[in-house]
Amino acid sequence: MSAPSRLPEKNPLPAGFLDRLADRFGTQLQTGAAIREQHGSSESHYEAMLPDAVVFAESRDDVAAVVTICAEAGVPIVPFGAGTSIEGNAAAVLGGVSLDMTRMDKIVAVNAEDFDCVIQPGVRREELNQHLRDQGLFFPIDPGANATLGGMASTRASGTNAVRYGTMKDAVLSLEVVTPQGKVIRTARRARKSAAGYDLTRLYVGSEGTLGIITEITLRLHPIPEAISSAVCSFESLKGAVDTVVQSIQCGIPLARVEILDALQMRAVNRWSKLDYPEASTLFFEFHGSEAFVAEQVETVKALAEANGGGEFAWSNLPEERNKLWRARHDAYYAAVNLREGAVGWATDVCVPMSRLAECIVETQADLAGASMPATILGHVGDGNFHVVFSLDPNSSEELAEVEALNTRLIERALAMDGTCTGEHGIGLGKQQWLVAELGDAVEQMRMIKRAFDPQNLFNPGKIFAL
Amino acid sequence: MSAPSRLPEKNPLPAGFLDRLADRFGTQLQTGAAIREQHGSSESHYEAMLPDAVVFAESRDDVAAVVTICAEAGVPIVPFGAGTSIEGNAAAVLGGVSLDMTRMDKIVAVNAEDFDCVIQPGVRREELNQHLRDQGLFFPIDPGANATLGGMASTRASGTNAVRYGTMKDAVLSLEVVTPQGKVIRTARRARKSAAGYDLTRLYVGSEGTLGIITEITLRLHPIPEAISSAVCSFESLKGAVDTVVQSIQCGIPLARVEILDALQMRAVNRWSKLDYPEASTLFFEFHGSEAFVAEQVETVKALAEANGGGEFAWSNLPEERNKLWRARHDAYYAAVNLREGAVGWATDVCVPMSRLAECIVETQADLAGASMPATILGHVGDGNFHVVFSLDPNSSEELAEVEALNTRLIERALAMDGTCTGEHGIGLGKQQWLVAELGDAVEQMRMIKRAFDPQNLFNPGKIFAL
Repeated sequence: MSAPSRLPEKNPLPAGFLDRLADRFGTQLQTGAAIREQHGSSESHYEAMLPDAVVFAESRDDVAAVVTICAEAGVPIVPFGAGTSIEGNAAAVLGGVSLDMTRMDKIVAVNAEDFDCVIQPGVRREELNQHLRDQGLFFPIDPGANATLGGMASTRASGTNAVRYGTMKDAVLSLEVVTPQGKVIRTARRARKSAAGYDLTRLYVGSEGTLGIITEITLRLHPIPEAISSAVCSFESLKGAVDTVVQSIQCGIPLARVEILDALQMRAVNRWSKLDYPEASTLFFEFHGSEAFVAEQVETVKALAEANGGGEFAWSNLPEERNKLWRARHDAYYAAVNLREGAVGWATDVCVPMSRLAECIVETQADLAGASMPATILGHVGDGNFHVVFSLDPNSSEELAEVEALNTRLIERALAMDGTCTGEHGIGLGKQQWLVAELGDAVEQMRMIKRAFDPQNLFNPGKIFAL
Repeated sequence: MSAPSRLPEKNPLPAGFLDRLADRFGTQLQTGAAIREQHGSSESHYEAMLPDAVVFAESRDDVAAVVTICAEAGVPIVPFGAGTSIEGNAAAVLGGVSLDMTRMDKIVAVNAEDFDCVIQPGVRREELNQHLRDQGLFFPIDPGANATLGGMASTRASGTNAVRYGTMKDAVLSLEVVTPQGKVIRTARRARKSAAGYDLTRLYVGSEGTLGIITEITLRLHPIPEAISSAVCSFESLKGAVDTVVQSIQCGIPLARVEILDALQMRAVNRWSKLDYPEASTLFFEFHGSEAFVAEQVETVKALAEANGGGEFAWSNLPEERNKLWRARHDAYYAAVNLREGAVGWATDVCVPMSRLAECIVETQADLAGASMPATILGHVGDGNFHVVFSLDPNSSEELAEVEALNTRLIERALAMDGTCTGEHGIGLGKQQWLVAELGDAVEQMRMIKRAFDPQNLFNPGKIFAL
């Protein structure tokens, strides 16, 4: 659906290539239509772009072997995790091999004393937290989907806890990577800080599989706080909700989570998750700390909310109540898309300085007033990051064009406020022109790195940079 | 003093080069012996390596012009800030131009609502905090010296607050850089997070001037906490002090600062800063938060200290008392070096996972017992980072060899514990072989970036990578 006409033709696989893969991988190699379809599709509005084959990696040696075989044959490699990215980040633009990492799902070590763990990239965030819970630890980064940690590292994901705990940029201590040259490198030691050379860890976080394949991740963990309180509060206006967040942060309140949902998003959440919140501009809060410190934070934020047209706080303090609340938030994208039967989603992803957030959201809300399809606003307002989720008819080119125009105006608005076209979804297929609009000549420095690491352009070609 | 015999000969400057610089820069160009000596020397044990000329940049246009003139002539460029780095990071190994950035010392903007500021790279950390104080904001990163922010970004510096507020990696939101191609790029927008392409910000932070020249920095700031309490506590043993820190962090106490100093370091501090603390293993603490939250943190940490052989807490709660305490800590390197008259300093810089810290410090202490020169231990124990400061006779090759051997054993000990050879000083001249020992083939990926950005190897040549 997204301008495929501009993409070059796929090359046919070289003779004997699939045989070489089959010799090495046996049933770990699959070429059936259904499996290729699954690995070429996404949860968003992009058309399917299928790989020629799927290899299920089970070890770093498997990954290194795929890299070597593909490099010799000049065949593209696209790493694939949970398939939940929403900028077409794992589409096989030029075909080739989709390298499925989900069988590499071992938790290698949990170093509780050091608040870190070592995992394979196919581990999903919910499974990691299940594993950690008994040790009093948790991993905070939580995009809506139950994504793999490898995918989350590759897109520099964040989520609802980023305002307090940072993004994948902050969470990754070290990576093991198979480079395009087929070497296995480790980007850093397990020390909590280092000044040893270029920061390859941060270079690979957010590189979307274009510079090599992540085979192991060392992550920072956090102690489960003594007290956790979650609350929902409705506001008279979206602006009142945003102002409450901005002022809370300016007061130095270490909000653990603070999410905004507009009235239509609340209607979608109520329907999808069978809840009955008021269908108004709403904030979901979470506070972490000692009992006394949480109480102190709550008092300040309640006063600010009241001054900004907020209503009562509906508290969820039991774990099962909290889980229900945050499950509803995590499912908000699916809830919004399903406002229409048979629709597909398109999620925008701008992030602006906090001082411009209210203005950016209010202007966007006005621009959406005339949209011909459902369009909700939700986001991680503590970071200045919010999404519009459009629920699109996949067969209507008019709707696609309308959303493209709305998205263009939204991104231009954010860039004019010194913001970014993507807070957490990555560039993928959909933001390549906006990356250039945002960072100009800096993109040429990025391309220099890409060409140096991957001169054949075999690693997730057609992502981040236009072909 | 550091194996200069391995360095290649400097090339003479091309004919007419200094004339071209003089035409453009007038009195901003200086070639006198004293000024070249100052720009080729450092605060550490490295021998002076002088540039052929010094240019005092006053604007990004000046920087771009120097880059263009040097690139055309094939002459090295070494950026220079306060000259306080201690791994020879600004030595002019191959001569060329030392580009002095200290006149670019403007605070361009303070965006108080966004907790960020935009500054030129020659601003020093103390001047920045003086400027911010009236707005209730502060910048936490504080190496011992009153370094420039450009130098701190280039070496990925940290300091006493990193345990709570992170390092320069976390503090820098965006950079303006003149690339080796002479282009002015900006690595990111002012949004607090972004998933837009490769993380060039983090690539430049810690790149020690080898990939281009930083001309503007956007920094994250923090609100000055409502309550700040500092304390000093002596311990029966170094291990008891370290265990107190490890256990405090494992309890989730958000220590703002926690510094260790051994008995000899305390003697040096008392002498240098005219204080009278007990000359025993000591922790310097600082707690930030609301009044109630600080009181709660203090209670927990006092109980842990008592259980680990700690004595009374000597409190410094008035600003002038706190400043005196932390001034003494910041001067600790100078205090240690000056335990001997006419000595020079050599500071080691390992950082290990917290679970190995007590073992690493205790083994190091034992190894230092036989040292023939004063050797103190101090460091940022909340990060797992500590330094040994040797006070060396600059004319004794025996002492140099002895310290080299002690440093080698210390780094090997840290690497065996999955630690790093440098927590915050950078690679510079002194850690190049250890970078390879630490990260192996990953260093080849770094070299690929260096070659792609700077194929002539003109930007701070001979740093990070051996020539």
